Amino acid sequence: MRLIAFGESFVVGAGDPDHLGWVGRAIAGRREISLYNMGIRREASDQLLARWEAEARLRLVDYEPMRIVFSFGCNDSHLVDGAPRVAVAQTLKNARAMLTAARALAPVLMVGPPPVVDPGVCARAEALNAALLALCARLQVPFIDVFQPLMAGGLWQAEAAAWDGAHPGAAGYQQMADLVGAHPAWRRFTQAAE
Amino acid sequence: MRLIAFGESFVVGAGDPDHLGWVGRAIAGRREISLYNMGIRREASDQLLARWEAEARLRLVDYEPMRIVFSFGCNDSHLVDGAPRVAVAQTLKNARAMLTAARALAPVLMVGPPPVVDPGVCARAEALNAALLALCARLQVPFIDVFQPLMAGGLWQAEAAAWDGAHPGAAGYQQMADLVGAHPAWRRFTQAAE
Repeated sequence: MRLIAFGESFVVGAGDPDHLGWVGRAIAGRREISLYNMGIRREASDQLLARWEAEARLRLVDYEPMRIVFSFGCNDSHLVDGAPRVAVAQTLKNARAMLTAARALAPVLMVGPPPVVDPGVCARAEALNAALLALCARLQVPFIDVFQPLMAGGLWQAEAAAWDGAHPGAAGYQQMADLVGAHPAWRRFTQAAE
Repeated sequence: MRLIAFGESFVVGAGDPDHLGWVGRAIAGRREISLYNMGIRREASDQLLARWEAEARLRLVDYEPMRIVFSFGCNDSHLVDGAPRVAVAQTLKNARAMLTAARALAPVLMVGPPPVVDPGVCARAEALNAALLALCARLQVPFIDVFQPLMAGGLWQAEAAAWDGAHPGAAGYQQMADLVGAHPAWRRFTQAAE
């Protein structure tokens, strides 16, 4: 199976000394899965919308099952000149466009954004997380919500604050991976059978 | 620092239960490096030539040092209808085009192809490895030759034979990562200073 992961720095695993991020950790030991990690740091959903499909099509093959996972929202929630980089309505529009186009190519799953240290960005990311959850429910795309569990644990935020204010370390990424990996939707998503 | 790695399945780390491959393992513990792993399984250098630059440019930023590593040659060495997928002269032409264009963007390094189980493919990959080494010497691009050390150890080939005939497991990838990581050219390449 080939798993293609699109999103921002948390998908890349920025700050993870083990260079796995939550995606690599969520498929630990599953050597039958090849991971294409297509996260890009600081990228907003407008930019992801412009590039994901070309990159996905280059990695799709007809002889092996494929899966596409998306996870974004934090970068959209940053302010530039007093306004979010991408307004909520536009993020949702971008998400809808990507999710509906992607599921014509392969089974698709979305993982919600994690919390961040900056209180304002974090509050906007939390609201966006709820809106993305609702959108995915309407589209019948499986959605894994990690926001509150990571927020409640405190580890994610503590590691991020101790590093660069945004990205956790090995333990934080592992916690997110555990939340994703234990979710029934993820287990179904990464099953070998088409 | 952002490290962009282009190449084939060995760059992806296909078959690595830890989803690191030699690239991820070669930068273990270096959390200041974000890895963009752009390997694609089964891809020949003709296809890589057509896509690497667009993907690299999307990941280049002016506020952080970048490095670009290439590693390919095994897929070109497979036979289709009695001829290599890509002839040696064409692989060298592709390599020259990529290496010269890439180093206009960022410091560049090439890692030679590893051995494979099939004797014919392996012999052609070994010849290609020597030709790529010579090309890189002419271009003054640092080249790390892993072919003979991996061949001599036997572990790489044994793990590949035990899995899918092409890809090793954790120990084989670690061996390649150790060869790369210990090389002075790699240490210079991944130094923070521009």
